[in-house]
This record gives sequence, C-alpha cells and structure tokens, in this order.
Amino acid sequence: MKCLKVGLVGFGTVGGGVARILLEDADRIAARTGVRLELKAICDKDTTGDRGVELSPGLLSDRLESVLGDPEIGAVAELVGGTTFARELILKAFDRGKDVVTANKALLARHGGELFAQAEKCGRSISFEASVCGGIPIIRAVRDGHAGEEITCIMGIVNGTCNYVLTRMARDGASYADALARAQQKGYAESDPTLDVNGTDSAHKLAILGRMAFGEDIDFDQIHVAGIGDIEQADIEFGAEMGYTLKLLAIAKRVDGQLEMRVHPAFLLSDHPLAAVADEFNAVWIRGLATGDTMHYGRGAGRMPTAAAVVSDLVDVALGRAAVNAEAFTALAGRVAKASVRDIHEIETHYYLHFSVTDRPGVLSAITGVLGRNGISIASARQPEQNQERDVPIVIVTHLAGERDMAAALKEIDALDVVGRKTRLIRIER
Amino acid sequence: MKCLKVGLVGFGTVGGGVARILLEDADRIAARTGVRLELKAICDKDTTGDRGVELSPGLLSDRLESVLGDPEIGAVAELVGGTTFARELILKAFDRGKDVVTANKALLARHGGELFAQAEKCGRSISFEASVCGGIPIIRAVRDGHAGEEITCIMGIVNGTCNYVLTRMARDGASYADALARAQQKGYAESDPTLDVNGTDSAHKLAILGRMAFGEDIDFDQIHVAGIGDIEQADIEFGAEMGYTLKLLAIAKRVDGQLEMRVHPAFLLSDHPLAAVADEFNAVWIRGLATGDTMHYGRGAGRMPTAAAVVSDLVDVALGRAAVNAEAFTALAGRVAKASVRDIHEIETHYYLHFSVTDRPGVLSAITGVLGRNGISIASARQPEQNQERDVPIVIVTHLAGERDMAAALKEIDALDVVGRKTRLIRIER
Repeated sequence: MKCLKVGLVGFGTVGGGVARILLEDADRIAARTGVRLELKAICDKDTTGDRGVELSPGLLSDRLESVLGDPEIGAVAELVGGTTFARELILKAFDRGKDVVTANKALLARHGGELFAQAEKCGRSISFEASVCGGIPIIRAVRDGHAGEEITCIMGIVNGTCNYVLTRMARDGASYADALARAQQKGYAESDPTLDVNGTDSAHKLAILGRMAFGEDIDFDQIHVAGIGDIEQADIEFGAEMGYTLKLLAIAKRVDGQLEMRVHPAFLLSDHPLAAVADEFNAVWIRGLATGDTMHYGRGAGRMPTAAAVVSDLVDVALGRAAVNAEAFTALAGRVAKASVRDIHEIETHYYLHFSVTDRPGVLSAITGVLGRNGISIASARQPEQNQERDVPIVIVTHLAGERDMAAALKEIDALDVVGRKTRLIRIER
Repeated sequence: MKCLKVGLVGFGTVGGGVARILLEDADRIAARTGVRLELKAICDKDTTGDRGVELSPGLLSDRLESVLGDPEIGAVAELVGGTTFARELILKAFDRGKDVVTANKALLARHGGELFAQAEKCGRSISFEASVCGGIPIIRAVRDGHAGEEITCIMGIVNGTCNYVLTRMARDGASYADALARAQQKGYAESDPTLDVNGTDSAHKLAILGRMAFGEDIDFDQIHVAGIGDIEQADIEFGAEMGYTLKLLAIAKRVDGQLEMRVHPAFLLSDHPLAAVADEFNAVWIRGLATGDTMHYGRGAGRMPTAAAVVSDLVDVALGRAAVNAEAFTALAGRVAKASVRDIHEIETHYYLHFSVTDRPGVLSAITGVLGRNGISIASARQPEQNQERDVPIVIVTHLAGERDMAAALKEIDALDVVGRKTRLIRIER
C-alpha cells in the first residue's frame, strides 16, 4: 500500500483538525482510498497550548527543519495563513522536493502565479481545495467535474460571516451591527471581521475560482470589491417586497472575451437556488454551456470541514493525482495568460436604486428624467407611503443598463435639491 | 500532449451529445486539460438517422469491430443502455484492453460487482460519472471530495421526472396524471415513465452512490423501493400546512453498522436545502462526520449535461486518473464486502399518517389508542373541518417510531369499522 508521510506547519484551528483526522482515521482512509497517510511531524511556534488532540512525544516542535529537513516527508500542509512566512515556506518545500497542500486563499490570490511557476519548475504540486469554501469540494468540481465543459459564469456565496449577517438582517429584522455581533458570538466571525465584511476574503476566493474556471491568471487588484458594511435593513425589506433576496456575491463571468470579476452585495430573485442559502453556509453556482446550472452547497469554514478538505488533497498527493493535475491542467501551469478583466464601469446589469427625496411635486419626474437622458430604462418604480416630508424613499428597478451611464445619472441625481442623502445602488443578478 | 482515441457505442441522444463535444470542443478541452480527445469510431445499429451532428465519412458504422477491433482506441464509451448487450460489450472492451466510460446506471446497479471485478482482472478502469445525476459531478464529490471523510448519510432527489411531477402538484395544485402528462410534453418523462415513477431509476442510482459512499457492495434487490404513483394532492397540501415538502428521496444511511437503503416519497421540513430543489432538477445531500452537510445540485438528465459528464470521464482516462482510481479505491475493487442492508421493517423514522374515517364520536380515540398500544407516540394531530360524514381525513404526525410497530398498528387500524380506505403513510426525514 502506498504511504505518504505528512508534515504539518501551523497547528491552530485547522491544523489541529487535520492532525486529529490523520491520527484517528488513517486506517479508515487507507481502507477506503488505498493510501496510508502518516503524520510525521508538526511545526508551530506554540508547542504547549492545548488543541484537543493527543500527540505522541516529539511529534510537535517549533523547528521548521523537523518538517522541511525530513526526507521521508513527501507532503507539507501549510496551515499558518498570511502571505509572508507561508509564501517562503511553500517555496522552500518545493525546493526540498515536497508537494504542498494549503488552505491559504490570500496567498494564492496574491501570489498564485509565482507559486504555480515554482511548483512546475521543481516538478512538484500544490493542492488547495481547502482554500475556497472549506467543506465544499468546489475546486474539484470546477477542475474535474467540469473538465469537458465551457464554464460561462460562476456566482458564489463564499463568505459565511457575510451570509450569516445578511440572513439575520433579512429574517429577524436585525440591524447590521446586531447581526454582526451575533455572528461573532456564534464563532462565525473573527474578532476583527474587516476582511470578511469588506469583501476581501470573497475576492481572494474568486481569484482562485476564476483561474480554475477560465484558465487565466487573475490580477487580484483588478477585482471590483465592495462589502456589506453599508447595507441597511430598509433595502433588504424593499427588495424582499419585490421578490429579491440580498447576498454578498462573488461573480466571475465571461463576456465578449473579457472577464467580469466582482464582489458586491447583489439582489437575486428569491427563487434562485443561491437565494435559499442561509446563515453561515456557502454555495457556488456554476453555469456551463453543456451542463447548464449546477450548485455546490456546504460549510465554507470551520475546523473540521476545512481539515477534511486538506485531507482530501493529501489523498490526491498520495495517489499521484496531484502530480498528474499539476502537469496537465493549464490553470495550474506556471505560465498562464493574464485575464483581461473588464473595468466595472463597462459592465451591464440591472439595478435597484433607493432614492431619498423631499416629498414635493415633480420629484419622481426629475429623477426618471435624468435616468432617461442617460439611456436608463425603468422596469418598476415604487414610492412607499410615508408620513414624513424629508427622506422619503423612492425605489426604482431598472432594465439592463450600463454601469457608466448609471454612475453619470446618479451623480446628476444626487446633486438635485430634492434629493437628500446619497442614492443607494444595489446590482441585481438575473 | 497525451492523446486518447475514443470509440462510441450507442449514437442516440447522449451519444450524439458526446460526439458533438468531442468533434467541436477537442481544442478547447486540450487547452484546458492538457489532453486531446479524438473521436475515432462510432457504432450504432442505425447509421442513417439524423442526430444533429456532422460526421466525417466512415466514422459511423454498425460494426462493433470498428470500435473494439481498433487497437488505437483506448477508451470505449458505452451509451446503448440496457443490461444485456451493454454488459457483454463492456466485458469485451476490457478483454481488448480498453478502458470504459458508461452512463448505464441499471447495468452498474445490477452487475456492478461483476464489471468492477473484470476491470480489475484486465487491469482496466470503468468510469461512470454520467450514470448518476447527469450534469452533477456527484461520483467525484463522494469519491474524491470526501476522500478523507466518513459519510454517514446520503439523501438524493435523483429522478427529474418524479421531481417535476411532485413540484407541479405542490405548486400548481395539478393532479398526478396532469403533472405527468406535462412532464412528458416537456420531454422530462419518457413515453413509458414506469421505471421513473415507480422508483426503480432512483434505486439504480442509489445502489451506485451507496457503493461509492460506503465502500460496500449493495445487493440491488435489498433496496426498499416505492414510487410516487399513489401520491395524492391532499397529502401534499396537508404536509405543506404543517411545514413539509414532499420529495421522492433515495436514502442511504449508516445505522449501527448496517445500511438503510431505501427509495420512497418522503416529507422534508420545507427549509431543508433539498426541499427547494424544484422541477426537473436533481440534488444530492451528503452528511459527513467532519464536513457536516453538503449538497450538489444540477440537471440530472438531458443530452448535453449527461454528455459533458461522459467527456469529463474520458479526460480522467486520458490523464491516467481513471487507472489510479481503479487501483486505489475500495469501492471500485473487484471484491468488496457485501453490505448488510437493514430490512425496511427494522428502520425507525417519523411518520405522516392520513386516516380516512367516518365522522363518529370516539374515532380519534380508537385510532390513537391503537397507536399507543403499539408504542407509537404522537407529535401532532389534526382533523381538518369537513362537511361530510364519510372519508373524513385525520392527519397524525408521529415521533420517532419503528416501522414494524407502525405496520402492526396500521393493520389493526385499517380493520376498524370507522376507518374507510387504507391509511396513507408517508415517512418524514428530519
């Protein structure tokens, strides 16, 4: 039976989960997959803290050489996070002839090109199922399941914190702040949730998914990113009344030879499969020319789901499939064409607009006039009854419109006397 | 670049789709996956009918030797269906040193053990992503994505015809007959839909999923199978009022070292992810110890989704991954332990019961008395108001109860004077 000796670097939440599976379930995995995974060494700065896993003496040390210097270790699981030490570690591991498994989305999004190139140069592989949507085997679905398919669009709910917050705002009427506090209490949000709620984490995952789906190198800084920090209860409610559900979406779409790559809050029709994905769950919806629509749903984070994904990649290394993948798939090659990412101003979509106006005759006409002059056609408009004179909401949903025209129109509208605070815009995906 | 020459046997709906992808998209697939798939020969009895694919002269013939006798052909895609000719064809293909890709669920469910054993003996592989839920890469998700995982339960909506019928009954109030007729008009149901509506097709897929998830050989005849032919509008409505959605589920579950393997209509809580899977779509929900719940959703049938799955398997053969899989995974081995499948009378679940009674004092008490004496505890009961005396419905939902106790209780209840037609039972999965 094939045996793969594994070194872990990073013994935190996920590292502890991987150690537990390797120590407790190696027999079961061997019986199922025909390969034996053996945890040979763990490296972490902290060698004393309790991770709820019983280790034999000598397994854990703070010396990186205990992993990198052991010639028996064939695969290194990088679970430290961050983009500095982790990057150097992976490059060193390749250099020492070791395959790498990582859950590090920020690193792959920022330095994927370099890492794939170095892996190729050293004849090694890098596997990263755990980097996108933890427990959902989405990298495999895109790479292997859709190997014969031309993918045209991917839309994902890929951040559990944001989805929990938006779900609680929609279902309980909670404020953004309250919903976020509950997410933190439940352990779905970090104590500093900035990278989650501002969309950065979703964009990291989108860069990886985009590379796998389209076989092109995505410049992370070209992804348009907006978070959920500005979302207000009123918009969720107005949207719901019109049959829409609000989600933070990560969207990668092939349009006229370019790629749209964007992360932002978006309304979906409430019967879209993604609209039903609630709380901390993630899902990725894929449209392909032959297969039509598929969706993959599950837990995007958490100790054991992410650890199980790491272990599935270790099985791939042990079986030799990771090596085959690294050699075959363009998306995993060192040199990959740069994607031409469409500027956000060039996209076309439907829009939800929430104007805040003074209740005076001619207001609706003034607003719709500006939209019309900018070539924006209105699908529906509503002015909910209010017993106030200022900050009266007008909600308009548009037909397909250009982002540049929309920006020009809103600039003009927001300068009108009768318009109070800045108009709120939410894109609609249909 | 690796090149795999492919022979197709069966040039019907799916075969035509596979031919189209191989002829039109070989360059794109090669650019993406690093392997070139070349369609070398097609065999079908009918060599003249139009399949909407343009073939170069000589590609299509009615001689099986054009495929089996060509030493350059490395993989045979079996797309004829049925369990007689297809079985012989696959055995011959192994014998001639060819790998096999098939969409034939009935064959694998009935003769999987024999085929895997013969593949092993000949050092060949058999890949079958297209056999379960066409466009959903569910075989890979179970085998590879959950390679490090202990799967405890799989529940699937794996028949598009049944799901379309049940969806239209629930959402439009259509009768079973009308909904089935519409499914046929739309091309979601065969002209003879027997094997779909009676649950056999779902059971075929369940046998394959069960083998992959649990690594044991499932005796097809031990799967409990019931279809949707008896479902009535009233039950869908009563269920909906109590927060349940009715689906035809294929269930494989590990319980106390045994497997429950069953296909039958079942109520799900309406907020279960599977409950939202509508119309002709399929989905498979998986529970694993580490990953928790995942779900894979998409088109389970149709020409191009199924063809894309066949092509993804051909890519696996070309890359050598199919050979690796065949050698490594226990589920694909020739000799696999026989699953101990639990008799349906031994299962425990929750039940929905619809009694049809004569409106007379003491009826409810008589029924609940029998249930109580058989150890069945009631979670909720309702007697919708009726302006009739006979065939008055009483609906009861039970707590967890044993199937054997339930059968005994219903036998007794159905013999009561005040009970009219046979009591209707629908299991509830929670």
